[in-house]
Parts: sequence; structure tokens; C-alpha cells
Amino acid sequence: METIRGNMVIAQSGGPTMVINQSLVGILQEAKKHHHIDKIFGSLHGIKGILEENFVDLRLESDENLEKIAKTPSSALGSVRMKPTKDDCGKIFEILKKHDVRYFYYIGGNDSAETVYIINEEAQSVGYDLRSFHIPKTIDNDLRENDHTPGFGSAAKFVASALMGDNLDNRALGGVKIDVIMGRHAGFLTGAAALARVFPGDGPHLIYLPEVPFSTEQFVKDVQEVVDAHGRCVVAVSEGIADENGKPIVAKLLNETDSHGNVQLSGTGALGDILVAELKEKTDIARVRADTFGYLQRSFVGCVSENDVIEARQVGVEAVKASLIAESGSIAIRRVDSDEYKIEYELVPLKNVAKDTKHMAAEFIAENGHDVTPKFIEYLKPIVGDLPEVGKLVGI
Amino acid sequence: METIRGNMVIAQSGGPTMVINQSLVGILQEAKKHHHIDKIFGSLHGIKGILEENFVDLRLESDENLEKIAKTPSSALGSVRMKPTKDDCGKIFEILKKHDVRYFYYIGGNDSAETVYIINEEAQSVGYDLRSFHIPKTIDNDLRENDHTPGFGSAAKFVASALMGDNLDNRALGGVKIDVIMGRHAGFLTGAAALARVFPGDGPHLIYLPEVPFSTEQFVKDVQEVVDAHGRCVVAVSEGIADENGKPIVAKLLNETDSHGNVQLSGTGALGDILVAELKEKTDIARVRADTFGYLQRSFVGCVSENDVIEARQVGVEAVKASLIAESGSIAIRRVDSDEYKIEYELVPLKNVAKDTKHMAAEFIAENGHDVTPKFIEYLKPIVGDLPEVGKLVGI
Repeated sequence: METIRGNMVIAQSGGPTMVINQSLVGILQEAKKHHHIDKIFGSLHGIKGILEENFVDLRLESDENLEKIAKTPSSALGSVRMKPTKDDCGKIFEILKKHDVRYFYYIGGNDSAETVYIINEEAQSVGYDLRSFHIPKTIDNDLRENDHTPGFGSAAKFVASALMGDNLDNRALGGVKIDVIMGRHAGFLTGAAALARVFPGDGPHLIYLPEVPFSTEQFVKDVQEVVDAHGRCVVAVSEGIADENGKPIVAKLLNETDSHGNVQLSGTGALGDILVAELKEKTDIARVRADTFGYLQRSFVGCVSENDVIEARQVGVEAVKASLIAESGSIAIRRVDSDEYKIEYELVPLKNVAKDTKHMAAEFIAENGHDVTPKFIEYLKPIVGDLPEVGKLVGI
Repeated sequence: METIRGNMVIAQSGGPTMVINQSLVGILQEAKKHHHIDKIFGSLHGIKGILEENFVDLRLESDENLEKIAKTPSSALGSVRMKPTKDDCGKIFEILKKHDVRYFYYIGGNDSAETVYIINEEAQSVGYDLRSFHIPKTIDNDLRENDHTPGFGSAAKFVASALMGDNLDNRALGGVKIDVIMGRHAGFLTGAAALARVFPGDGPHLIYLPEVPFSTEQFVKDVQEVVDAHGRCVVAVSEGIADENGKPIVAKLLNETDSHGNVQLSGTGALGDILVAELKEKTDIARVRADTFGYLQRSFVGCVSENDVIEARQVGVEAVKASLIAESGSIAIRRVDSDEYKIEYELVPLKNVAKDTKHMAAEFIAENGHDVTPKFIEYLKPIVGDLPEVGKLVGI
């Protein structure tokens, strides 16, 4: 394959993560080592920035500032949720041509991978020589081809830390506590709540994943059983739980959709409040509360997984290296089958990660339908890393 | 004053904090040094544990385990919200007498201080020789006599860290983000959101405190103005905001009260969702979201203020020392007027901290009614300590 000389555009898209700027800095630092890459532009707010010629010169950033930015959560270049039309693509190539851009780097999830796929196909179709790469990120951990995704480990650490504290809070004051966790169709992040269990009897006692059809009647029964057994109950529930027909439980109340046709699940306490109302109506449990963790899960400062930091940086580096051997693709994280935790990076076709997502494997979901398996915990632990230590009085 | 020999009961009450067990361990470690204190009981779930004779022997705990517990959020002995009646007091003294308890240590907020006050008054009235001490804790920072309270600094650090991340998240995706923060009548914790501002234009752009009557019309106007100026808006709002008649904005929807007559404000996303609905109805802003931080603010593991940790431990130590010179009281934290941050501990009468709370001083509230003052930031900084560093691209 011939390496072409030209300029580069980097952009970020979709929901931010705590380590998405590690990938940005990884791309940038590696790109600076390659002589076929001249100018390095940052496009503000994803492809919207290309359409508006809203670029910044990323070579102006000092290494010191870049290291600060790498440690800063949420897309430093801004983000967008936007699927390009054929017309958009035409305009994009016009602008890229004007700036002699031959390298397009897009950091995002499955929707963003679809954007890169569309742009790559269109570029080939109109004969614009563009090398398009997708760099994975999503707290949902639902990208195909990947063992896990950058951003997930840190979000999972936040969720586990939150549940550890919430289990202690619930132990102190009793009753039922419901925690609503992000994850539209994939239960990985909700499942991470299980890491909060340290001592026997610790919550979360029930974990509801979007992969398992949710029955409100069964939920009320499950909670009552836990309360009868433990005198209290902590529930971790995915924002994306849906009934047996696939209709999101919260969709009965809300109607907002984004440009990819997704229903708004985050940024509202509605689901938690619905579930609380259900328990208050159907049981005699005195104290029932719900918290919706919301955007804290993807943006809280000061809570990252060490492996996540390293891997988010490296996918950026690998994506630049890939431009020497391929014209397009997405960097995927694979786990090496070994006793110690070890991963490797592989370049995969864009279409393999675009659009469709992956769900939790059956072996990760407990048979009772409201928990994860030990196998999932084993999978998850090195991704999340160490959690703070908590203690308990021996006399209790 | 005569020092009497006898056993001790320690208990925890009210909402947990991230450092409440530092105070427990402070009391315990100091008590072990005093020969007039024999057995040291932990009463489970506050005074409910006394009424049910539900005690644990705290001398059985190893120093190593106690240090782990000190670092663990949420009341290790369990908690309760319960105001004792005259009858309860009679029963309490009967049980304390049976176990020869002469020292009663209660860690809690203003409601808990009221409990200690009632028990102390009743003990004198019936002639039961009991030394009763209150040890301050509350994330609300609303105890009278105190410059600030143990638990507040760590909760404020959580809120500031959350808002730092949320400001970055909002900068990336735009629109309006509303964060609902704990604090029934006092705005200290909501005001701590202001520490999240690092760069010009950073949110929170609007801060609504319970001390300032809340007008929904003005709120809509304020948000629109910020969006017009910055293209986005981050709002920090207290769960306790009330209209000009003092009626909580959320109370129109909810009716649950606790045994102290307080309306339930936490553990529901209702207020955030009401404010979102208001903005969606009255403005054309496309993306409006709300998160309610909920119990994470008081229980998240791995987020403490260093000064808070030290002070929460020390109030426990001081309370035990106070038993040598007084028959009852509460330990208050005073700030020494000096260039460097310095505090001292003072024993104050129980009635001075019981029941009524303090609010934010007028000098801490901005004249526009939707922000805090530089004086408040100056007051707050040493209480919260260092926050994680964040960066920003120079080209933006």
C-alpha cells in the first residue's frame, strides 16, 4: 500500500468518557512521529466541525498541556451526535480537499464508526483519496470485535465505587435503594455494580440488565424476597430495561429521540421514580429511594481505571500506525488467552464495528435473570482495577 | 466536676457521611486511654439499638480493622432517624442502668443533637447520672456554632468534582444541564459547585440556593440568558429550593415525611425533571437534561477531603476529653482568624446546636440571587482541599 502525504483531521463524537482525551493525545503524539502527516487539525464537535470549517491547529499544543488534557474527562474537541447524509459527505470532501486532508481520525462508539464507514464508502465512491480510521470509545462496552472498550473500565469503576458506598448507606438506614445505571442495550456497566460486593450480604442484591426482559411484577416479587431475607435491598438497574416486546420501560413516559433514532434514557430520573412508585404501591416497604447516576458515570473527575487509561492512549497510537498498512479500519482490543491479563490491538474493517452493537454474552448473565455470573466478574476485574478498601465491624 | 466510672455507648444517627466513621474511631481510640471508661458498647442504629439492647462490644475491634472502618463511608454502626419520646427516655435509662452505662456519645446532625439534648434533660429530670455528648456530622454544613461540619468537606469535594466533569460534558455536547444537589435548607453543598470553575466561561453558570426564594419564571429567564451568551448552560440547584412562601418546589409532587417532620427531597429525580419540563415548555432549547446526585454525595467511596478526614477524627477525640471537664455538650469546630487555615475545637451546650440549623450568611450569596460570592469560595477552599487538575486545548 502506498503511503500518501497530507494533512490530518481528528475529531470526537458521541457520549464523552473519562479517558477519551487519552486517545486524542495518543493519536496526536504518534502522528507527530510520522513524516507523511503534515498539519494536524482538530475538528470541533465531530463532523459538524468539518462542515463548518471549525478547525484548531493541534500542533500548537505543548506536550505538557496535552498530558493535562489526556487526564481530563470529556471530549476536549467537543462532540456531536450526527449521521452524515450523502450531501454532507460531498460537502465534507470539498472542505477536506481544500485543506488537503488525507487522514480522518474519528474517536467514538458504534454510531461514530458508522459515520466513518459512510464517509469511507462515499470517499471511495467519489474517488477522494482519504484514509479513515475509527478509534473505539464507549462506556457502554458494546462495540463488536472488542473484548472491551476504552472508557468502559473507568465508568465501571465509578459505578462499582458508587454502589459500594450506596450499599453501606443502605445498610445504615435500611429500606430499598434503586440505582439506575447507563447502558441503552448492553448491561455491562450495570453488571459492574456486582464488583461492589465485599462482605456476605452486601448489595447490589438484584441486578437488572437490558438483555433480560423486565417484568414489573417479577421485580416487585424479587425485591420483597430480598427484603424478607436481608431486611433491606439494593438494586442496580439498567436505564435500558425493556419489556418482553423490547419496549423500554421508561419509553412509556418519554418521547425524545436523537438523530440516530435512539430514545432519550439519560438525564432524567423518570425510570427510578417509576420503579419506586411501583414498590410503594405494591408492597408495605417503608423506605424506598432511587438515584439515577446519569452523566457522572462518564465524566466524574478523579475516578479512572489504570488499564483503561493505558489502553485508551494506545488505541490512538495503534490507529496512526495502522495508516502505514491500511486505508481504513477500526482498532479493536482483544484479550489474549493467558493466566495474566494481557491484551493486543487489531485492525478490523469499519463495517465490523459500525452501527450494530454487542450485548452481554449468555455466560455473563445469571440463570435467575437478575444477577451476573462469576465468569463476568472474572472478565471485569482487570478492566476496572483496584477499588477502594472498605471495612466492617467484626461484632456486626 | 467529678469523673464517674462506668460504661460507654456510642451510636450514629441521621444521614451518613464519608467520614462519620472517623469520628467513631476517634471516640473509641481516645476512650481506650481513659480508665474511668470500662466497657465500650456500640449501639446499632442509633437510639433504636439502645431500646432493643442491640449492642456490640467495640473493644473487640482490632486497631487495624478500626483504621479500615475509619476510611469506610456510611455509619458502621447503622443509623436511624428517630426522636425519643418521654417514654422512650424512661426505657433508655432502664437499659443503660442495667448495663451501667454512664457515657452516651451520639454522632449526628441537628436532629441527633436534639435527641442528645432531650435525653440529657430527661436524665437530669429523673436523676440518672449520664454524661451525654454530641459529635457533629452533616454534609449539609448547617449546624449552628460550627464554622463547618465533619462530612461537609468530602461531600463538597464530590459535588465540585462532579460539576467539573459535568461542565466538561456539557461543553462537549451543549444544551442545558441541571444538577440537583442535597441540602434541605442550607445551600452550602450546592454552593460548593462553584469550585468546579477553572477556565473562563466554565459552569456552573447558575447556582440556586434554598436561602433565595425560587421563581420558575426567573429561572427560565436566567437560563435563556446564559444560553444566549455561552451557547450552553450548567445549573447547580439545591433540592431544597422553595418559593417565596417557603413551600419546596418539589413538595407539590411529593408528600412523604420523616419522623422529624421533614419532606422527602432525596432519592427522587422529581425536581430535576420538573425543571427540565419547565424549560422544554418555555424555551426552544433543544437539549435539556437533569441529574440528581442523590446519596452518592454522602457515600461515594474514594473521594474525601484531607482536612475533613482529620477533623472528623479529632471531634471524636475532643468529645471524649470533654467528658473530663463537663457533663454534656457538643464539640464545635471554630476557625481561627489567621492567614493560614487553622481551626480549634470548643465544647458548646447541646441546646446551641440542637434542632434549629444555620443557613448561608448573606455575605456568601451573590446579589443576583443565583451565585455564591468570592468570600464563600475563600471560606470553602481549605475545607474541600485540592481538586483534580483539568486541561483545555489552547486553540479553543
